[in-house]
This record gives sequence, C-alpha cells and structure tokens, in this order.
Amino acid sequence: MFANRLFFDISDTQKIEELRNKIFTEYDSNQVGYYSLPIENENLLSDINIWGRKIQNIQNIVVIGVGGSSLGTKALYSMLYHEKKADTPNLYFLENIDPITIKKTLQRIKLEESLFFLVSKSGTTLDTISIAKIVMVHFEIFPNNKCFGKYFAVITDEGSALNKFANEYGLKSFLVPKNVGGRFSVLSAVGIVPLTLCGIDTTKLLRGAAECKNEFFTQKSTTLLKKAIAYTIKGGQNINVLFSYSDIFREFNAWYVQLWAESLGKKKGSKCVGLTPVGLIGAIDQHSFLQLIVEGPKDKSVTFIRVENMSDDMLIPDISLKYIEKADIKKGISAAALLNEQALATMKSIINEGVITDEIAIERADAFHAGYLIYYFELLTSLCGLLLEVDTYSQPGVEIGKKILLDKLGK
Amino acid sequence: MFANRLFFDISDTQKIEELRNKIFTEYDSNQVGYYSLPIENENLLSDINIWGRKIQNIQNIVVIGVGGSSLGTKALYSMLYHEKKADTPNLYFLENIDPITIKKTLQRIKLEESLFFLVSKSGTTLDTISIAKIVMVHFEIFPNNKCFGKYFAVITDEGSALNKFANEYGLKSFLVPKNVGGRFSVLSAVGIVPLTLCGIDTTKLLRGAAECKNEFFTQKSTTLLKKAIAYTIKGGQNINVLFSYSDIFREFNAWYVQLWAESLGKKKGSKCVGLTPVGLIGAIDQHSFLQLIVEGPKDKSVTFIRVENMSDDMLIPDISLKYIEKADIKKGISAAALLNEQALATMKSIINEGVITDEIAIERADAFHAGYLIYYFELLTSLCGLLLEVDTYSQPGVEIGKKILLDKLGK
Repeated sequence: MFANRLFFDISDTQKIEELRNKIFTEYDSNQVGYYSLPIENENLLSDINIWGRKIQNIQNIVVIGVGGSSLGTKALYSMLYHEKKADTPNLYFLENIDPITIKKTLQRIKLEESLFFLVSKSGTTLDTISIAKIVMVHFEIFPNNKCFGKYFAVITDEGSALNKFANEYGLKSFLVPKNVGGRFSVLSAVGIVPLTLCGIDTTKLLRGAAECKNEFFTQKSTTLLKKAIAYTIKGGQNINVLFSYSDIFREFNAWYVQLWAESLGKKKGSKCVGLTPVGLIGAIDQHSFLQLIVEGPKDKSVTFIRVENMSDDMLIPDISLKYIEKADIKKGISAAALLNEQALATMKSIINEGVITDEIAIERADAFHAGYLIYYFELLTSLCGLLLEVDTYSQPGVEIGKKILLDKLGK
Repeated sequence: MFANRLFFDISDTQKIEELRNKIFTEYDSNQVGYYSLPIENENLLSDINIWGRKIQNIQNIVVIGVGGSSLGTKALYSMLYHEKKADTPNLYFLENIDPITIKKTLQRIKLEESLFFLVSKSGTTLDTISIAKIVMVHFEIFPNNKCFGKYFAVITDEGSALNKFANEYGLKSFLVPKNVGGRFSVLSAVGIVPLTLCGIDTTKLLRGAAECKNEFFTQKSTTLLKKAIAYTIKGGQNINVLFSYSDIFREFNAWYVQLWAESLGKKKGSKCVGLTPVGLIGAIDQHSFLQLIVEGPKDKSVTFIRVENMSDDMLIPDISLKYIEKADIKKGISAAALLNEQALATMKSIINEGVITDEIAIERADAFHAGYLIYYFELLTSLCGLLLEVDTYSQPGVEIGKKILLDKLGK
C-alpha cells in the first residue's frame, strides 16, 4: 500500500483536467519513453537471466557511469540492500574522476571476481571513459585481449559510439531505448541489469512502477496533478524538500535531487525558471535543517516519506538511566515506531506553521514500493515540467562547461 | 595555502567596517565560545593522550550522537581518512533511530574491541539516549556492571545530566564549554576526542583553524566580510551552493548544510528570514544540478572548493578506444588535474551566466586545511547572522516537534 495524503487543497478542477490532458497527450506522442518502461521490460529480464548464467563466480559488479547512469541504480540498491538475495554480487560505483575514491574502490576488488559495466547513453562522457581507461590499465586488460568481454559489458543507446565499440570487441551490449532520457532511465537496462544481477527483485520493482502507472493513467488518480499545481503556483514554494525517514533513502534523495533540478531548471525565452530540490533524512535532520523550515522563509514545500512496517523487532529498552530519566519513553515502543512517531510529530509542527506539506506512507521498504516511488517522482517531474512549460527532458545548460573543458584538454 | 578568490565586488567600505566592528564586539563578549577553540585546546589534547594509553586493543570508536554531536566529526573523518595514521581504530556513527542502520553497524563490531562515546551537550536527546540503551541491551553491558566504564565514555557539558550520569557510574567525561553551541562544537572535545583517538592529526587541524582565526581577527582580511555582505543583500541570492570537488567532501557538505540552515533560519519579530544551503559534489553534480544553476532562477550563489595538489600519481591513460575517440584527452593529464580542470571550466560557465561565484583553492586535503575550512565556514555563518540580525546560536524551531513527541511517548 502506497498512501499519499495532501495537507493542502487544490480545487481548480479545470486546471486539473487541463493538466491531465497535457500529460495524456505527451504519453500518446511516444516521444517520452520512460512512461512505458514498467511494462516493456519482460524481454530484458529474460535476456539478463540467460546471460547471467554465463557470469558465474562474479562477486563484484562495478558500474562505471555518472548522473543518470548511476544515481537511480545506487538509490535502489541502497534502499533494497537489506532484502537482496543471499550470495549475490556486491555493487560498486565508479562515478567521479577522483583519484582518492577510484583507488579505494579498485583496492577492494579483484579482476577475476569482477564485471565492469560501462554505462553511458552516448558513450562519450569524458569522466566515464577516462575512468574506464584507468580500470583497464590498473588490471592490465585491454580491448584486444581475448578475455576482455569476460570482464566488460556496456549499457548504452542502440547505435551509439559505445554500442559500436562493444560490437567491435565482442562485448555484450544492453540497450536503452533512444526516447528514454538519462535521468529517467533507471527502470531501463541502466538500472535493471546491474540490480537484477546483484539479487534485487526487479520483477517486483517493475510491478510497483506499473501499479503507479495504472493508478495515474487508468484509474485517473488526481493526487499527483494537485501536487504539481501546488508546486508551480506563481509566487509559491520554489524549494521542494523531500524529508525521508530512514537512512536507506539517502541515495534515493540524491536521485530525486538530480531528477528535479536538471529537469525543471530551464531557460524559457528570456526567463529563467526552475524549482530547487532538497533531500533530508529523518530523524537526523530534525536536529538541524528543520529549524530553517519552521522559522525560515515560507518558500518551501515538504514531502514526508515514511515506512509503515519497518523491521519491528528492535525495541527501545525499558530501562531508566539515573539523571537522564527525561529521555525515558513508554514501554514497548520499537525503534521503527519511534522513527515513525518522529515523522508524525515533525509533520504536525510544520503544518502548524502553514508549510505546504504532504505525506507518503509506504507499507514496506521493498522492491514493489521502491518501483512505485521511482515512477511517482518521475511523473511528478513531468507534470511540473508541463506546468512550467519547459523542456523537461533536455539539459542544454550542462553542455557549456563540457565544451570549455574539451577545448582545453581535448585532443 | 588557502586561496579565496571572489568573482564579485563589494565596495561599500563603511558597511564592511560596521560588520567588522560587530563581530569584534561579539568576539570580545565571550558569549560565543567557538571563536577561541583553536587556541584553548592544549589541555584537552594532553588529556586525550594520557587517557588514550588506557584504551589499548580498541579497534572501533563508536560515536552515539546526532546533529552537531556527529556531523562535524564525520565531516573531518571522511575528509582526512586517506591520511589517518596506520593501526588506529575505525570510527563509526550511530546517529539515527533507524533499526536497519543500527543493526548493520552493531553486526560489524565486537564489544571487546569497541569504545562507545555518548555525545550530547544536554545529555537528554531522546534519539541518542534510546540508541545507547539499545547498544547496552545488545551487548548486555549496563551502568552497574563493573566494566561499564571500559566501554562507555561521554562528551557533554559540565554539570549536564549526562555528566552527572557519567560521574555516578565512573565513566570518563570529556567536557564541552557551555558557550560553545552544538553545531559550532566540532573543534571542542566533541570532534577532537574521537578524531585524535582514530589517528587524525588534530594538532595540525587546530593549527589550521588558528591560522584562519589569525587572518581574520589579527590580519583583518576583508574577504569573509565581503562575502557575507554579498549573501545578505536584500533581494539577492537566498540559496547558497557549496560545490566541492572530491568525494572526500561529501560529509563536509552535510556539516555545512546543517550549520547554515539551523543558524540562519530564524523568526525576526513577525518576519521569517534565512538562507538555504545546498551541497554538491564535483565533478558528479556537473551532470545534473548544474543545469538548474546555469539556466534556472538567479537566486543562487556558488562557492567552489577544490584541492590544488591532490594525489597526482593516477594518470588518465593515453589510449584511444575505437569509436569513442571523442573522449580522448591530452597526454599526461592526471585524474586530479582533470577534476581541477572540470571545476575551472564549470566555474567559468557559471560566472558567464552572472551567478555570484567564489573559489576556495586549498593546497592539500590535509588536517591543516580541513581545520581552516571549518573555522572559515563558522565565521561566515556568524557574519551572515549578524547581518540578518538573528540569533545565530539558538534553535527554537526544532523544539516544537520534540515537545509533540514527548507528549505522546514520554513517560
């Protein structure tokens, strides 16, 4: 069960219907590929299963990729790590051209036990390819070595430079549909391949995403429409906080931040528009950032995420410590219950201050609900993009720095 | 060397002098204790060294604390991990009342090899004390056990409830000056004790902080004054981005975010003021959030942090991969140099867009520069607080939720 309560009301039914029509039109255009990912991936899963049998003895899967090529996968792996199947490989990420992190990761793995996925839609991302070259030299394994294809595979667009490279040297390529943008690609091969190989239940994950799709496009739920309208009302809240209660959501927050910032920050003629995402972890950030939400400018909306039924077998011991009895709590409260009560108390204190607030309560922190969450925030992003009238799926602003860099360092 | 270049100008010398007078007055009042921490800690260091000899065979130091009691320590440990002394204990954190993380951490450590620090200024933080009780039950070690003091110690205010508890059961207490606020406490016992025990060069750390103090208060550098004025000009940039180039700064960003948000988000009569912090990691976030900075609303300032001389022995291999030659770069460029060039190129692209930008280039990612950075951002926070005319050192907004919670769950 995925329950989303809005503590605000949007009653303009005409605006709601207009927005619904817009997203249905975008859906029908077939130009935005992520909408269909939850139901089009059966072939991919069987391909992974067949190919996966060949890679016995692999203990480490290493994703070499950045931004949309890594963040979604990392988000789901962290969120679902506690329920991954036993005896499946560990997942590592080489995202940053940072010698300290690269060294640390390479020291932890052996070539014979590892499989590297080069993940890039275009295949020419400078950071990603440079890291791949460092890995090749470190392990002394190069494209014309016989066993290159045993250790390297690619996830990329069909016909991309990286796909051609893979074909030239006999590497396995998993393909991403061209109409699926990088930051909307986690439910394509980009996320599904490494997650499946690392023992995450991706069938259930896709089923969760399909359920969200169904509720929105078939059952025509209005919740997301109302939320998008509330976020884009002129002069409203231009900072959107995601307050997630559990450490397992840390990377999910980071995925949300990149999705939101890169999709909605755009030039619109001579105007600059955009919404600023902030990711917080409860209960930790109650002890700091909350102060700014409660007493600072009312330019923020807050979405709480909490897990109704978390691992419930850890009770707060009913012992009293001399002089610190103030911190004693009622008997029989679990850590999970305390975490939930913290969320509810904080929510109440924020609503009292008039902050635009909503609550997402998921039944369990499992693959089904993770898939639902991913699709939910992708839809919300698309809806806000339609309301802001920007091109949600492009990123012209990040190209300028790349050009400056290539002019200086390129061959 | 710590070089801070501002790419904007503040020429109002009267305002600069007024601000300087204000902070000198605050400094002289002795009410804000963190100002003096870099030079008052010699006794603490010798206390740690003497006491440290007693705790042989300890392999894990575990900090049980949240917010100001953990974030600064975590920031410095992550930033300096690559230069910690050999054969020193590892540092763990139990911050969140999250059963999944608590379980994971407790599974990794054995009681006989571990030392737990209860860190709380007041000593009655509900989350911290609840986690401590879970640890006690997990390892079956309680206050009236003979060897309790072998495994537990506290860091707290003199005379606090936690200090009394420690005295009652014979635990070692390291004390924090009362006039040092939680989020400004990392250079007090809060950070210095666990970091010293874990092999971080805290003498050098404090020397770096003292150097920043000296440049500001004695040599009267105007850089920080100008920066604070630029950030608080009315109608200006109310989102302040810290774009740090290296994964080692991830937790430092988190420390900055809590410091900035909690110090500056305040009610001022009937008005709500505050600045919103955002922490980014380069080069990773060039592939996402950068889009919002370049093309989104011009409500953001950006500070770049980069390390001039990073570990320079990892070269980008001068090999060319068929079909992906576009990603080839000049011969002899190291990963560290590429990371720096990415920062410079991104900085250029942002300045071109008219964003308020400055650059902090530190010579090395070592304890000296880490100490400088900490003190630098603390000073900047104090200066902005003075300009916004708020009480930088209080946090009334986080108390409301705590009260709601205690009303429901307290005994």
